[in-house]
Amino acid sequence: MLFHVKMTVNLPHDLPADQTAEILQREKAYSQSLQSQGKWRHIWRIAGHYANISIFDVADNDELHALLSGLPLFKFMDIEVMPLLRHPSAVRDDDR
Amino acid sequence: MLFHVKMTVNLPHDLPADQTAEILQREKAYSQSLQSQGKWRHIWRIAGHYANISIFDVADNDELHALLSGLPLFKFMDIEVMPLLRHPSAVRDDDR
Amino acid sequence: MLFHVKMTVNLPHDLPADQTAEILQREKAYSQSLQSQGKWRHIWRIAGHYANISIFDVADNDELHALLSGLPLFKFMDIEVMPLLRHPSAVRDDDR
Amino acid sequence: MLFHVKMTVNLPHDLPADQTAEILQREKAYSQSLQSQGKWRHIWRIAGHYANISIFDVADNDELHALLSGLPLFKFMDIEVMPLLRHPSAVRDDDR
Amino acid sequence: MLFHVKMTVNLPHDLPADQTAEILQREKAYSQSLQSQGKWRHIWRIAGHYANISIFDVADNDELHALLSGLPLFKFMDIEVMPLLRHPSAVRDDDR
Amino acid sequence: MLFHVKMTVNLPHDLPADQTAEILQREKAYSQSLQSQGKWRHIWRIAGHYANISIFDVADNDELHALLSGLPLFKFMDIEVMPLLRHPSAVRDDDR
Amino acid sequence: MLFHVKMTVNLPHDLPADQTAEILQREKAYSQSLQSQGKWRHIWRIAGHYANISIFDVADNDELHALLSGLPLFKFMDIEVMPLLRHPSAVRDDDR
Amino acid sequence: MLFHVKMTVNLPHDLPADQTAEILQREKAYSQSLQSQGKWRHIWRIAGHYANISIFDVADNDELHALLSGLPLFKFMDIEVMPLLRHPSAVRDDDR
Amino acid sequence: MLFHVKMTVNLPHDLPADQTAEILQREKAYSQSLQSQGKWRHIWRIAGHYANISIFDVADNDELHALLSGLPLFKFMDIEVMPLLRHPSAVRDDDR
Amino acid sequence: MLFHVKMTVNLPHDLPADQTAEILQREKAYSQSLQSQGKWRHIWRIAGHYANISIFDVADNDELHALLSGLPLFKFMDIEVMPLLRHPSAVRDDDR
Repeated sequence: MLFHVKMTVNLPHDLPADQTAEILQREKAYSQSLQSQGKWRHIWRIAGHYANISIFDVADNDELHALLSGLPLFKFMDIEVMPLLRHPSAVRDDDR
Repeated sequence: MLFHVKMTVNLPHDLPADQTAEILQREKAYSQSLQSQGKWRHIWRIAGHYANISIFDVADNDELHALLSGLPLFKFMDIEVMPLLRHPSAVRDDDR
Repeated sequence: MLFHVKMTVNLPHDLPADQTAEILQREKAYSQSLQSQGKWRHIWRIAGHYANISIFDVADNDELHALLSGLPLFKFMDIEVMPLLRHPSAVRDDDR
Repeated sequence: MLFHVKMTVNLPHDLPADQTAEILQREKAYSQSLQSQGKWRHIWRIAGHYANISIFDVADNDELHALLSGLPLFKFMDIEVMPLLRHPSAVRDDDR
Repeated sequence: MLFHVKMTVNLPHDLPADQTAEILQREKAYSQSLQSQGKWRHIWRIAGHYANISIFDVADNDELHALLSGLPLFKFMDIEVMPLLRHPSAVRDDDR
Repeated sequence: MLFHVKMTVNLPHDLPADQTAEILQREKAYSQSLQSQGKWRHIWRIAGHYANISIFDVADNDELHALLSGLPLFKFMDIEVMPLLRHPSAVRDDDR
Repeated sequence: MLFHVKMTVNLPHDLPADQTAEILQREKAYSQSLQSQGKWRHIWRIAGHYANISIFDVADNDELHALLSGLPLFKFMDIEVMPLLRHPSAVRDDDR
Repeated sequence: MLFHVKMTVNLPHDLPADQTAEILQREKAYSQSLQSQGKWRHIWRIAGHYANISIFDVADNDELHALLSGLPLFKFMDIEVMPLLRHPSAVRDDDR
Repeated sequence: MLFHVKMTVNLPHDLPADQTAEILQREKAYSQSLQSQGKWRHIWRIAGHYANISIFDVADNDELHALLSGLPLFKFMDIEVMPLLRHPSAVRDDDR
Repeated sequence: MLFHVKMTVNLPHDLPADQTAEILQREKAYSQSLQSQGKWRHIWRIAGHYANISIFDVADNDELHALLSGLPLFKFMDIEVMPLLRHPSAVRDDDR
């Protein structure tokens, strides 16, 4: 089941550099692990923004929330969620 | 080059049914042709809305505008565009 | 799986009375049928508004969209959707 | 008498961890006590957000305000309130 | 129990004059009847707007909705509702 | 001459408790004095919010501003002002 | 007593030309009469908009509303009102 | 050439009192000097707000920006600018 | 003197095709004439929108308004205006 | 390929003066270097704001993001991006 997620990062400008670096490193590992499992199906950077558009493929709302609230950057993010489904005009098999 | 496009359809409630059907048929053919060409890479329905989230893969802004303004439903749509790029944490090859 | 849905009805003021009555009658039957099946778990009127707050319990996003887009009033409604899940502080068994 | 309440939590990112833990523990106990009394009839988490949708069943506006302003997290929350009533199409007895 | 209600009137500019006059006459009678009963406790015009601020004193949310949805201008109004209660600093007895 | 004023209080969460208490005590005395003089004609709490709806009865805009800017909480408040007048349908003598 | 008023004109695009011309002629005469009386102290066009910024000098809120609701274009306007007063740094005598 | 400027002051609540006083004293002198030169033609306080509405009369956009960015409070202000011109219905000579 | 103008076209969907074509032909001629005169210095299409971003170079606010209100599409456009000036970091001579 | 970028600077009011000066110096050098390369084709100050309107001419979305995220002020800016293309009515050769 697919969800469209927009994440916008708002790091406090005075967060210590090493703390920032440590969070970002954990965030990247977390994201790549979920991508490898097929749960985080797409991720794109939005040009000019510290933000991304992502597509999640999860079993249900519970799993979606567990994955998002587990993000190392969760408390520094503004997150918007929209449930998606296959479009009746879609031709690609994996756009379910 | 990727663009994120959100299309929301606002058909006037008193548009004649046959005119509506004819436009929607052309819209579907137009969309599927572009999907087959690889220019309209993804399309998903947003649950509960007469709207979709799409990812376009085009040569440049000119081509994006030509494709969008050519939509049979163009004059009945509210369209939002965001330029995308590969995310530094992306692992899938085709999330470019 | 639960979804929070807010529906606001915007009937054109010049819709013929009999057409309005016929749509509303179908809408009520449709809603009550889904409530009886347990898919439309809650529905409340918002005081002072021609609007309701509803909780749907569906298998997935596809079913949610099928139910909402099948509403007789669908083309006259402004709909907002939010995926829900059990709250960690919930004590009632059926607030899943 | 029912009220729809949306609570969004905005904890300052630099609130000491033990102070946060203590507030959250009191918040949970407070919520569960009101749920057990039947005054806080429903509570759901909104997927991807540190927020909940709740339904309160209270005697009047005074009681609603007393319950909400007594929340341990009250000063860290953005709260939206809508008065609800039984919908004319409702079939469940307790959706009053 | 008190509610704060803001009503903004949006009459279609091409509504026939006699129909408009008839609705406004019924609206005035309806309002004055409720004022005399003490249910519509205050009504003020907002300077420069075809709008009013009103305070209703009703038994519960159901009665509030019944009164508002019974307004002859209901379908031509944008209505905002806020539940009120006695302020801890109030000194007037009837600001309950 | 009447004015509708909505005041929303935004106290910094880290304001020292004794400083907060002292300001609130002065605010209450200030409000009650103006109520006794008939200049602050109504004040109600908005359910679920640290906010109030007030009606002021003043000689002119100058007096309104002098009263509002003299509020001990003025620098911590978001204030919205609307000029009111007697509604043509009003029946109560003091809803002038 | 001064009020800041922003008026934005929204004439329906299919209003007959002679009806439009007649309204605009009455509007101009109405405005110029009030300007001559000193009640409509300033009026400026906003560049690029069918809108104006005006300063009214009236006895009270009642007079302001009477003047604004008497505008021939009133039903085709979006009006915003703000009460003004002399600024403590003002040096011109008539900026009261 | 006239410009409409709305300035809203947002002083940090913890700015030291003497620093605030010094800035406000400079701001007042700066404003009164420009008023005396005829460049700052009008200034009014908005009732209930720490904000003003001003009319500037400058040679061009460059001068407008130089005057505004030179305000001692510039970094603590939210500023909105609209270019104005003489209204075709204006009767006063100096409403150019 | 430069102004940034965003124009968004909202043609009624039921405007007769020949009337639309005639307006668009006049609009194009009008725009190209002003471009040739150097008053309409830049014009770009916004991808995916029936809208443009333009830079005008005019003597003053009066001329800007005369040019914009003379647009054949003026009554069908939503227009936003911002005064510009040379940026202190600009290196191109004609970015004045 | 052209992009319209609006940058609004929000420097924390308590950023040390020397740190601010150093960032601004780097920002100016960075901007002027890109202008000289033809990638940052236009930059204008918005009158009354600490903000600019810029036109970028880049190979693709990736380059746009690399240039913007490399801005020394990036973390202190609110940035809005719109893809542009040649307008069908444009007459200047370089408004591509």
